[in-house]
Amino acid sequence: MAEIETPAGVANELRDALRSVLGDAGVVSDPALLAARSGDWSEATKMPPALVLLPRTPQQVADVLALCARHRQRIVVQGGLTGLAGGATPAPAEVALSLARLDRIEDIDAVGGTATVQAGVVLEELQARVESQDWYFPLDLGARGSCQVGGNAATNAGGNRVIRYGTMRELVQGIEVALPDGRLLTMMNRVTKNTTGVDLKHLFIGAEGTLGVITRLVLKLSPRPTASSAALCALPSFEAATRLVRDMRRALPGLSAFEVMWSDFMEAAQEIGGLRPAFAEASPVYALVETQGARQEEDRDQLERFLGEALEAGSVSDVVVAQSQGDAHRLWAYRETIGEMLGQLKPHAAFDVGVPMAAMDSFVRTVRDALQSRFPAQRHLFFGHIGDGNLHVLSGPHGSAESLHRVEQLVYEAVGAVGGSISAEHGIGVVKKEFLHFTRSDAELELMRSLKALLDPAGILNTGRVFAPTTSV
Amino acid sequence: MAEIETPAGVANELRDALRSVLGDAGVVSDPALLAARSGDWSEATKMPPALVLLPRTPQQVADVLALCARHRQRIVVQGGLTGLAGGATPAPAEVALSLARLDRIEDIDAVGGTATVQAGVVLEELQARVESQDWYFPLDLGARGSCQVGGNAATNAGGNRVIRYGTMRELVQGIEVALPDGRLLTMMNRVTKNTTGVDLKHLFIGAEGTLGVITRLVLKLSPRPTASSAALCALPSFEAATRLVRDMRRALPGLSAFEVMWSDFMEAAQEIGGLRPAFAEASPVYALVETQGARQEEDRDQLERFLGEALEAGSVSDVVVAQSQGDAHRLWAYRETIGEMLGQLKPHAAFDVGVPMAAMDSFVRTVRDALQSRFPAQRHLFFGHIGDGNLHVLSGPHGSAESLHRVEQLVYEAVGAVGGSISAEHGIGVVKKEFLHFTRSDAELELMRSLKALLDPAGILNTGRVFAPTTSV
Repeated sequence: MAEIETPAGVANELRDALRSVLGDAGVVSDPALLAARSGDWSEATKMPPALVLLPRTPQQVADVLALCARHRQRIVVQGGLTGLAGGATPAPAEVALSLARLDRIEDIDAVGGTATVQAGVVLEELQARVESQDWYFPLDLGARGSCQVGGNAATNAGGNRVIRYGTMRELVQGIEVALPDGRLLTMMNRVTKNTTGVDLKHLFIGAEGTLGVITRLVLKLSPRPTASSAALCALPSFEAATRLVRDMRRALPGLSAFEVMWSDFMEAAQEIGGLRPAFAEASPVYALVETQGARQEEDRDQLERFLGEALEAGSVSDVVVAQSQGDAHRLWAYRETIGEMLGQLKPHAAFDVGVPMAAMDSFVRTVRDALQSRFPAQRHLFFGHIGDGNLHVLSGPHGSAESLHRVEQLVYEAVGAVGGSISAEHGIGVVKKEFLHFTRSDAELELMRSLKALLDPAGILNTGRVFAPTTSV
Repeated sequence: MAEIETPAGVANELRDALRSVLGDAGVVSDPALLAARSGDWSEATKMPPALVLLPRTPQQVADVLALCARHRQRIVVQGGLTGLAGGATPAPAEVALSLARLDRIEDIDAVGGTATVQAGVVLEELQARVESQDWYFPLDLGARGSCQVGGNAATNAGGNRVIRYGTMRELVQGIEVALPDGRLLTMMNRVTKNTTGVDLKHLFIGAEGTLGVITRLVLKLSPRPTASSAALCALPSFEAATRLVRDMRRALPGLSAFEVMWSDFMEAAQEIGGLRPAFAEASPVYALVETQGARQEEDRDQLERFLGEALEAGSVSDVVVAQSQGDAHRLWAYRETIGEMLGQLKPHAAFDVGVPMAAMDSFVRTVRDALQSRFPAQRHLFFGHIGDGNLHVLSGPHGSAESLHRVEQLVYEAVGAVGGSISAEHGIGVVKKEFLHFTRSDAELELMRSLKALLDPAGILNTGRVFAPTTSV
């Protein structure tokens, strides 16, 4: 963690006004508490905020924004602080607006399958509450125990099950947003289909808090799956993986995960995670697949039959189908050693890029060759949610900030060359800002800046995240 | 059809400039051709445009917008003219910008499952081309033979299979838009997950051409289903339908349609369509269900087993499972008599509203009772894509414009009262503009107007559609 700097002060007049809106308990200046809000899970330089504000209602959020706009006081919005792009890490002299006390699950509609929640609800808590009513909130990611649904929406979070259920954007039906001018925009739509002009919620989903603060959400639920089957497939080539995912989506519409691991990842998983090889022979590519449904045996038989035929046809080289929950955990363990790998390969460069499927194979070869020739002593691991064209690359350990930067430059240039995305699910924040031009054109950045100027003319809200506020900055 | 008025003229200087961009063949002033572009499928008053412009490239679209902005010449954007809300019907002195010649399917990526197309491609042509390559474009609606994909995106079209594949919004991965200031904003993203700042395409999807003209699209394909099963279920109550759709989504993830018809609709279908009753006894509610997959027999067996168990459990009163394609067509025939009903019940009021599932039953009862008591001589039919909370109501024949308006007022007020949407899939255009306030707040309308002023400061593009350009108009 980088050194913690001393925060700049906040004008007394503003501080008093904030206290009158939030009460004394809602305006925190205790240095230990400020230090605890000095950064997210990224490598961005930590810095405590000048104050932490803890509103308890959406209206208080709006009031705080109006006050800060009047005083030109910059704000950083903070959810569970699990972001990987530094978006919630304070910049000098910013106050932190925490959603932690907006933590109420207001309603679960068990007929229509929607949950109405405040933005500060922790993802895992929502998942549990919804499942207790026989519904399911399919968004799932490693940070589930700390991340908040408001942050999930602001960053358009993804995860393992996007192939079936979509990203957070597809799961948000209604939204409430506090705008930087102090207005509260309430659009708590509870119907799936609503074609009545510009769908304004998309201005805020994925915008990483640059245009407004999400205060409440209506989330779309799915019926809770009561059965789940998993299998690990060894594949003769990446091309075989692209055919397999297409054929599985057609034949097994319950397909809920399709995770690809290249051989370098699998070897590292076995070594670092202390796991036994799943197959007698190594393969160039592996796919971990999962289906969700309602009939355990029937669903597993269906998966087994499908993969048996694929094996006979030679489109799969070998396969292990989980016969129990324990088996399934053992198969997922290869993929989940990523936590240990991230720890062991520090300092590392970790990527979350989008690459068109048709370009994926040559992308991986080109980038792997380039990394291996320039950094022969390091590990370079490739894996990802390939059903969504989402590739993760982990490269490390690297001795210097300079070589980390060279790795980043190399990977993002290659992404730009294939028309991919420099961030499939983690967002831009501050750490990927300098690479944004590889994915977004000047015209797009200009339009984002116009939207920022329209909605946040005082430039107080998460300013400097994602894109520079003006072309000259 | 209402009377066709004579169009106002276009300044010679602009006309010459348009010819220099589009060539003589691209600027049409022949009265017969103008008359052919005088309106869409809605009841909005027809009026020929002052000219029809036929650009052949996206850049020409952008150039036309820049020219018209300079001359303050208003434009109406026209696709296949199949809209039901009057959005493409010219207002006085408007020129029509037709996308008909931007009709190229540029690329089908058979590995990644995307189609790159120009906006004027006809939906049915795209469906066929994609299916010939073993992929599937799931958006489908009655107008498929005429409507264009650009219009589908501009209106966020829905249709029967939204329950599985989403609306058009979920099927658009990349977009290119000509802005009213003459810029061409190219965002032809080909990856599913792209979290790199504000996702600007959503400003244009569903905005009905008020903010820009969609010129090209990257569309997400699904593997082509090679099997399809259908069944018609008689249900003891609407509540049973809500449980059935939840349980089917859980157990049969291939569920691709769940169409509900109330008994009044079913009786009218039998009478007007000359169809035999499917069941010996009438039921209050019917559900027509469809699954799509890859194995005809296995999938049908699975559907049959599921519905057999539902029948035993009493959650379904009776059921017919299609044993052949012919059977399936006979079951869909009940739903598809809607075409004949619309013809026979003219003049009618037809609705496409979104209602939260939990409020649907009482909504239907309240609205039916109110309509029956005020208009006892008319038919009032209820049906819809209930898996998406999308209800259609057809009421007619009504003798006067005044009674049609009373029906509209009654239905939209009831929609507003349950927090529903006055348009689930058809859009607002001009015909539903006066009712928009039942679904969208003043703050939302104000923000839409700000976006309009930002992107179309000269106010030339589809102005007056969806919302009035200023609060005072």
